[in-house]
Amino acid sequence: MDAQLILELLEGVRQGRVSVRHALKRLRLLPFEDLGFAKVDHHRALRQGFPEVILGEGKAAEEIAAIARSIKRRRVNVLITRLSPEKMSVLRKKVAGLRYHPGPRAATWVAGRIRPAGRGTILVICAGTSDIPVAEESVLTATMMGNNVERLYDVGVAGIHRLLENTERLFSASVLIVVAGMEGALPSVVAGLIDKPVIAVPTSVGYGASFHGISALLGMLNSCAAGVTVVNIDNGFGAGFAASLINRV
Amino acid sequence: MDAQLILELLEGVRQGRVSVRHALKRLRLLPFEDLGFAKVDHHRALRQGFPEVILGEGKAAEEIAAIARSIKRRRVNVLITRLSPEKMSVLRKKVAGLRYHPGPRAATWVAGRIRPAGRGTILVICAGTSDIPVAEESVLTATMMGNNVERLYDVGVAGIHRLLENTERLFSASVLIVVAGMEGALPSVVAGLIDKPVIAVPTSVGYGASFHGISALLGMLNSCAAGVTVVNIDNGFGAGFAASLINRV
Amino acid sequence: MDAQLILELLEGVRQGRVSVRHALKRLRLLPFEDLGFAKVDHHRALRQGFPEVILGEGKAAEEIAAIARSIKRRRVNVLITRLSPEKMSVLRKKVAGLRYHPGPRAATWVAGRIRPAGRGTILVICAGTSDIPVAEESVLTATMMGNNVERLYDVGVAGIHRLLENTERLFSASVLIVVAGMEGALPSVVAGLIDKPVIAVPTSVGYGASFHGISALLGMLNSCAAGVTVVNIDNGFGAGFAASLINRV
Amino acid sequence: MDAQLILELLEGVRQGRVSVRHALKRLRLLPFEDLGFAKVDHHRALRQGFPEVILGEGKAAEEIAAIARSIKRRRVNVLITRLSPEKMSVLRKKVAGLRYHPGPRAATWVAGRIRPAGRGTILVICAGTSDIPVAEESVLTATMMGNNVERLYDVGVAGIHRLLENTERLFSASVLIVVAGMEGALPSVVAGLIDKPVIAVPTSVGYGASFHGISALLGMLNSCAAGVTVVNIDNGFGAGFAASLINRV
Amino acid sequence: MDAQLILELLEGVRQGRVSVRHALKRLRLLPFEDLGFAKVDHHRALRQGFPEVILGEGKAAEEIAAIARSIKRRRVNVLITRLSPEKMSVLRKKVAGLRYHPGPRAATWVAGRIRPAGRGTILVICAGTSDIPVAEESVLTATMMGNNVERLYDVGVAGIHRLLENTERLFSASVLIVVAGMEGALPSVVAGLIDKPVIAVPTSVGYGASFHGISALLGMLNSCAAGVTVVNIDNGFGAGFAASLINRV
Amino acid sequence: MDAQLILELLEGVRQGRVSVRHALKRLRLLPFEDLGFAKVDHHRALRQGFPEVILGEGKAAEEIAAIARSIKRRRVNVLITRLSPEKMSVLRKKVAGLRYHPGPRAATWVAGRIRPAGRGTILVICAGTSDIPVAEESVLTATMMGNNVERLYDVGVAGIHRLLENTERLFSASVLIVVAGMEGALPSVVAGLIDKPVIAVPTSVGYGASFHGISALLGMLNSCAAGVTVVNIDNGFGAGFAASLINRV
Amino acid sequence: MDAQLILELLEGVRQGRVSVRHALKRLRLLPFEDLGFAKVDHHRALRQGFPEVILGEGKAAEEIAAIARSIKRRRVNVLITRLSPEKMSVLRKKVAGLRYHPGPRAATWVAGRIRPAGRGTILVICAGTSDIPVAEESVLTATMMGNNVERLYDVGVAGIHRLLENTERLFSASVLIVVAGMEGALPSVVAGLIDKPVIAVPTSVGYGASFHGISALLGMLNSCAAGVTVVNIDNGFGAGFAASLINRV
Amino acid sequence: MDAQLILELLEGVRQGRVSVRHALKRLRLLPFEDLGFAKVDHHRALRQGFPEVILGEGKAAEEIAAIARSIKRRRVNVLITRLSPEKMSVLRKKVAGLRYHPGPRAATWVAGRIRPAGRGTILVICAGTSDIPVAEESVLTATMMGNNVERLYDVGVAGIHRLLENTERLFSASVLIVVAGMEGALPSVVAGLIDKPVIAVPTSVGYGASFHGISALLGMLNSCAAGVTVVNIDNGFGAGFAASLINRV
Repeated sequence: MDAQLILELLEGVRQGRVSVRHALKRLRLLPFEDLGFAKVDHHRALRQGFPEVILGEGKAAEEIAAIARSIKRRRVNVLITRLSPEKMSVLRKKVAGLRYHPGPRAATWVAGRIRPAGRGTILVICAGTSDIPVAEESVLTATMMGNNVERLYDVGVAGIHRLLENTERLFSASVLIVVAGMEGALPSVVAGLIDKPVIAVPTSVGYGASFHGISALLGMLNSCAAGVTVVNIDNGFGAGFAASLINRV
Repeated sequence: MDAQLILELLEGVRQGRVSVRHALKRLRLLPFEDLGFAKVDHHRALRQGFPEVILGEGKAAEEIAAIARSIKRRRVNVLITRLSPEKMSVLRKKVAGLRYHPGPRAATWVAGRIRPAGRGTILVICAGTSDIPVAEESVLTATMMGNNVERLYDVGVAGIHRLLENTERLFSASVLIVVAGMEGALPSVVAGLIDKPVIAVPTSVGYGASFHGISALLGMLNSCAAGVTVVNIDNGFGAGFAASLINRV
Repeated sequence: MDAQLILELLEGVRQGRVSVRHALKRLRLLPFEDLGFAKVDHHRALRQGFPEVILGEGKAAEEIAAIARSIKRRRVNVLITRLSPEKMSVLRKKVAGLRYHPGPRAATWVAGRIRPAGRGTILVICAGTSDIPVAEESVLTATMMGNNVERLYDVGVAGIHRLLENTERLFSASVLIVVAGMEGALPSVVAGLIDKPVIAVPTSVGYGASFHGISALLGMLNSCAAGVTVVNIDNGFGAGFAASLINRV
Repeated sequence: MDAQLILELLEGVRQGRVSVRHALKRLRLLPFEDLGFAKVDHHRALRQGFPEVILGEGKAAEEIAAIARSIKRRRVNVLITRLSPEKMSVLRKKVAGLRYHPGPRAATWVAGRIRPAGRGTILVICAGTSDIPVAEESVLTATMMGNNVERLYDVGVAGIHRLLENTERLFSASVLIVVAGMEGALPSVVAGLIDKPVIAVPTSVGYGASFHGISALLGMLNSCAAGVTVVNIDNGFGAGFAASLINRV
Repeated sequence: MDAQLILELLEGVRQGRVSVRHALKRLRLLPFEDLGFAKVDHHRALRQGFPEVILGEGKAAEEIAAIARSIKRRRVNVLITRLSPEKMSVLRKKVAGLRYHPGPRAATWVAGRIRPAGRGTILVICAGTSDIPVAEESVLTATMMGNNVERLYDVGVAGIHRLLENTERLFSASVLIVVAGMEGALPSVVAGLIDKPVIAVPTSVGYGASFHGISALLGMLNSCAAGVTVVNIDNGFGAGFAASLINRV
Repeated sequence: MDAQLILELLEGVRQGRVSVRHALKRLRLLPFEDLGFAKVDHHRALRQGFPEVILGEGKAAEEIAAIARSIKRRRVNVLITRLSPEKMSVLRKKVAGLRYHPGPRAATWVAGRIRPAGRGTILVICAGTSDIPVAEESVLTATMMGNNVERLYDVGVAGIHRLLENTERLFSASVLIVVAGMEGALPSVVAGLIDKPVIAVPTSVGYGASFHGISALLGMLNSCAAGVTVVNIDNGFGAGFAASLINRV
Repeated sequence: MDAQLILELLEGVRQGRVSVRHALKRLRLLPFEDLGFAKVDHHRALRQGFPEVILGEGKAAEEIAAIARSIKRRRVNVLITRLSPEKMSVLRKKVAGLRYHPGPRAATWVAGRIRPAGRGTILVICAGTSDIPVAEESVLTATMMGNNVERLYDVGVAGIHRLLENTERLFSASVLIVVAGMEGALPSVVAGLIDKPVIAVPTSVGYGASFHGISALLGMLNSCAAGVTVVNIDNGFGAGFAASLINRV
Repeated sequence: MDAQLILELLEGVRQGRVSVRHALKRLRLLPFEDLGFAKVDHHRALRQGFPEVILGEGKAAEEIAAIARSIKRRRVNVLITRLSPEKMSVLRKKVAGLRYHPGPRAATWVAGRIRPAGRGTILVICAGTSDIPVAEESVLTATMMGNNVERLYDVGVAGIHRLLENTERLFSASVLIVVAGMEGALPSVVAGLIDKPVIAVPTSVGYGASFHGISALLGMLNSCAAGVTVVNIDNGFGAGFAASLINRV
């Protein structure tokens, strides 16, 4: 491998087979990965139980199938996000063993089992029932990354008592993902009640001046409660991934 | 006056001094106000205790002074909004008896006393201390229009218990004005707790992605709680005025 | 129920079965609703004749059906908004007795009869014929909430005499809902003629620089006439709901 | 001059001094203006009584002075727009005979007298007193271009009777310029009353969601009344210029 | 009719049948149109050869048919804009004699003949072939309003010689409509060449950062050439209508 | 205190002095905080070493002084953010012992010492030297919250080797805060190199189409690297606070 | 032809058949193209091997076919961009010899062969696999214009080593086209590594706050690396064309 | 230096002083620059005559002085952009030999002389006199980078003949920089006339709907003429830099 390449080169220098000048030139031209740097990157998935993630949107079913088969051969878990049922029905014929999750519109393939990785519990909260698909993408992502995940759904701020009834559950989580559309106010209220990191996910739920999630996004970025960080609109995957990283810190 | 003009015209017709054809022509050309329609408009302030309102911003101090003196001569109460202390110091020398309110940056002149007009209590709520000037503009406007007004300040959603401690006060109001900047989430929470009209006032408080109040404005327009209506950014006057109209319904 | 729980707890204290320390702990942990606070929320619909409202958009027909059946069992009136004819045709087979309103694209189910609740008349005005569906959503909402509702349609500002012919009707209303797309100027003109609360509803009617209702929304937020408050684009339901609250003040 | 150049060339051909091939080559390379095309442009101001217009904003006082002196030498009328009083006080020392107009913040220098050019009357209407400076820029521009100009100010739509009182004046104008900030609704109402061209000028008057004139601009572009065309925000000059062109059609 | 009503009332006063007080009351309550004001509005179409215009977009085919039949009964010319071929195929069965224009996607019905109304020629220019449908809407509108209309198409600024070849045609027009998408630069170049009113029509032609016509719209509003006024994106009708008004000034 | 109140009430019930019905009523009406819920909130700062944070912007120096003195009395550490040197010079005279940090424009007062709270190291990275003030706000916040904080500045993506030279430091951090203006690309590159949580802070550094930080904000929200979450523009405090919460997970 | 016209005119002058004055008048009125100016334009394609380019979007298949046939008759190469497969299937029947490229969604027809024109190599880089269609449009355009083109795909900044492995290829290119969606950070990193012109192409790849390419566009415009210029969103053609011009400088 | 470091390391291996394993470890950890990669970066300025560029905006005068002195010591030319006269007057006292250019608001220090680097001429064109400062920043940058630069100013599209008079100059340039504000149409016209690369620079010149340069930026991005690439608003430096790179291709 790469380190091997350098070893051989150095060995050549030591043995006098390779001139110092030639070795210098080779070292300069060696691709970066050959220095071992990028190996960390490639090994990360295997070492830490991270699945390989394929963004299904904007890729043809054939393209996804090719990537998925290649990953499976390496026995790494696969997570395909933003996958329409139509593409899935094509994929089903091309990649054996894929499991489709209609809620988060995602597919998974698990090599053996998912190795537990996170220490605490990730609590995924959402404001309304229309936000559930995005919330489920967070749940699936965090689950695939080996975390213990819990749900608390339909606790939007217009009926604040629904949230307050569940303060015990808020207190017992390590990281919280809060998913909301429309005015996106829920993360502020949640973050005001606890002292744990809150990842806010704006959704495109709403109409008119919700502008496909801009309203919720801005609300979350301007949260008056400290401790809130934000991901892209409808990016349940990103929140689940970031929460998993936090849960391992 | 105008009705008088029509009366005289009709009297002329009755007495044969004015021909029917001539009267028809006169009536067609009479300015609309002469038909009594617009009188309602002019009389409204006197009859109902509405003050005459001058938007101070964008007008020279001399201009404001001229208008204010003209209104005072008619013994109607005056409310001058968005008035900088600098303009006020000029006005002070030109219009006797004006009282300046540094909080809402407004000036008032009350002919005799303010006649009580509203039936219930208008509760003005604000999220943070920086929202107080806008809230005070609502308070002053509603007070000048004869309402009983109460304040509940600094009860933003990041410390939701501060609001919940005051639910009794929320329940006892007839109309609520809720002023908030940043994510503008407070009106949703308030409207979810009560069954009274809530007027939401976004403020330009915040920075960065608050975009001078756009974030709060969008949050309020997309409120997941029914019963919320919204006014322009920083428009404490408009909220106070609308709440006064509602309190008289 | 909840109050029962507290009663039992207190009874236990009184009888010495429960220690003071234990009761304190239990009381702290009791969900908020158990303190009777949120009951007001649940009872509101029954007590005041408010229908239960389901936002049909973004929910599957099956989901809507489940909620609607559950509400019907409680004999509460139901209003389903933003319901496409396609979903309705599915719903029709699953929920007996639903009535579809193609104008406002909504469905209703009335337990017995709608109890009159509002005192005055709510006048719903719209600018053009394309605004009628949104206006009808306001009409249906306010009607379901027990109000006397009247219509004044197609009186846009480009033919101002059409509005002025109807000033008597404007004067006799308690609350006015004004629905307009394009430049959204009608609420300003209406609010300038009367001294009643005006709720402005921008619609997405228009093309090009109307930006799906942004133009009308901004026009209404910047109304030069005091007394105008605004709801979200195409939010006829929100205007009808707020007007109903005002009509009960 | 240029025509002279061509004449000489042709004369050379006629006399046999210049070959046809050489003449063809020269003609191809002659700058466009040399063909007399652009002279029309240069002569336009003199022939038709148009003043030379200098946009004062973004130019140093020295720069403006140099241009103005050069124009004066040609005895053409000068109009300098968007000129701050500060720059004017510098200009005053450098260019004799300049007259400053503080309302529209412009300066003029008239060679002899302004030649009448337009046939009908241009009526400049504005909604509120804060819109007057922009309206006055239209008035000054149209006056400098030889038109009969009239004013109708402070007739905004919130008090629609103020406009309706003046319908006779609306009917008697040839072209109308309607200046308004905030929701920008006035042009729609005016254009609905008459059958003359209406040029709408949005102003940056307003605050919050007026977004420095965007609200008024969008309102005017989406006018439900046919016959309205729009210029840039605060562009009183552009409206005055276009109205002058129309008044000569 | 309405004037008749007033005549009778005045006659009643003259004859003593109607008291002055009663007449005053009636006059106050008479709808505005009854005073003859709005008649001008209704008569305008007949008197001046303006067609009645129906915006087809956002109306059901049945609705359009009803309006069109009603207008036909009055023997007034009809112009239906933004009419899809699908709706037209329904209309064809319901309204006899309608003629469809696939270019501008409009339908017309001409009572007898179109009375010539404008004095000069309206020249409709467009930048690219994709802008032609919008340009044709202008042509059809101006033609229906009795104008002599000419076309100059596909002369965008990227090949400026195509426009310059046609300067004679530019000079001979009374009013110019310039239609362009993408950067919307053509009106500036045209207006710089001539001294006639230019109405600029931005189109939604383009992709990416053209933002459905915003780029062209902004370009036209910021034209560095005086004399340009602008209508809404894709509003060929509005430009044709305004040009017709100008051509009659 | 509050728990005391409930204890007394329960004691009254136990002793028979207070009836069960009366106690139930009292408990229902007790403000939320009285149930001990909000105490967690108040105690959080003391228990966990969080400083009390005052947003200096939008508050008068007098107001800040009053709050700061009140906190000092409770011997809690104070952090005042977004504090201009001008306000600080006023504060200095009113609150003894305040220390001003000109880099992050903040002031602090530390009761005794800052108790270590975080487990790993928080690495604060910034792209250019103009981003340093925002980065320093993160550093100060995280330091005040008891974390070990390190800096890696001026390693923007236009000279990617500057970052790559420091990969060892990236690997050894627990949480990373990445601050960047202009195109905001640095967080993506950083997050692609490591498997730790990255909090991205867009800054308003840039000009033109950076739109005061919108460009950087959008870049970060759309990061192609998983694990990035974002805070408001220039919100160094928010990033420092969230990183501190994560560092304690 | 045109030059012929001038030749004849000059010949007439030489022979005395045409007076000098008459010739001058004719020359002034001759359309610009007649002076040979625009011929350069027309000849450019033939002389330099540029293909004629037809934007397929927004044109009917019939229209495209007519243009393509007309160009083919002149034996000039044809490039049709933004051509859907549906339109292609119609075109196929109408224009013989067209070749469709499904990747870039374009069609070409090459008269004989493409004449080599550029001197160095154009390297087309893209960030993710979803950006490939836009990148391929650049490749096809530059190829049709006679350049040597190479590809380097899927080297986005989240895995920076993939790019760094290929620095040799970056160094050996003359011009680089860098295509990226989402945060659009790749051009900054590339331009920081080399000293060659970089043309950045934002794509509409992404979702939520990518706003159909605005995020990538802003990122590229604000690149902290000098030497980056930008084209419209998804404008692979424009980048390929500009790179070809640069490669000939 | 760095290559020296590696040489020594390899020499140590060759001589047996350093073990192969140790050398491998050192090589892996060596900062990237030590491998010679980044040297290209550092050497680029010296080797190719590029000046070191300091963005003056957002840096304190002291900070700029420190950087400038450090560069001077290396005898590299310096270009400081966006430098206010105020900062310059401070710098003047701290850095000897700096020359200030008030037009482009920049300062330069030239070690010896600027080595000629570009082959053709860079022509900098601007539309109006207010665009000159940005154009001059391009001129200065390209001059400092060793190019022959020419100017063609005040040739905006509203007087197209001014540009057409200068077509010869357009034809003789190798690269063109076109600077324009307002509608930003000039690059399209220029690019349509020639077959050389055009770099468009939008400026913030304009008012109202120019939105500080957005209008010009969008116009340029949507240019209907192929071959146009765009830089950030007011980024004269970026255009000058990119043009210099192109001029060396």
